[in-house]
Amino acid sequence: PFNNPLSSFSYGMLGSRRSRSLVVVKAEAQSINPEIRKSEDKVVDSVVVTELAKPLTAYCRCWRSGTFPLCDGSHVKHNKASGDNVGPLLLKKQ
Amino acid sequence: PFNNPLSSFSYGMLGSRRSRSLVVVKAEAQSINPEIRKSEDKVVDSVVVTELAKPLTAYCRCWRSGTFPLCDGSHVKHNKASGDNVGPLLLKKQ
Ligand code: FES
Ligand code: FES
Repeated sequence: PFNNPLSSFSYGMLGSRRSRSLVVVKAEAQSINPEIRKSEDKVVDSVVVTELAKPLTAYCRCWRSGTFPLCDGSHVKHNKASGDNVGPLLLKKQ
Repeated sequence: PFNNPLSSFSYGMLGSRRSRSLVVVKAEAQSINPEIRKSEDKVVDSVVVTELAKPLTAYCRCWRSGTFPLCDGSHVKHNKASGDNVGPLLLKKQ
């Protein structure tokens, strides 16, 4: 049920017998990772920083990257679609 | 409007004149960062890896940490409340 966004909402109707309806939509806690490694209880990644190849490497924090744990720029589309403001963690060798 | 979780849902009623209602709840793209540095267009953080103090440092990817960009363990509460499976990025000095 947790993978279905609708399951996180409850709603009810009152007064429908009198042709009026009040719809109450109540938000509950939302998952932020829709797809990545859902078979794992907790998605944790490790970087041995001495092994970084490039001067700058971007790591994803939006859970939308096709190259997770690396950032592939998908945060831009996510931010536009949702109004969010998330971005990557940049690892710099110096 | 993007900060209000209800704004991300649309719903409608049909057939109320006959004392029946069909409620359609449609999920749209959801923000994953409810609170952190919302005045910034995009929250990007940089780590100069040569300056890491400890052998292991955990960086938050759940957007719920009180010490963001560091992880403070808040992903545990978030995962329990939402059914999610997110966790930090671990930076290891060796
Ligand atoms: S793709 Fe996720 S932060 Fe860039
Ligand atoms: S507090 Fe956010 S990943 Fe740990």
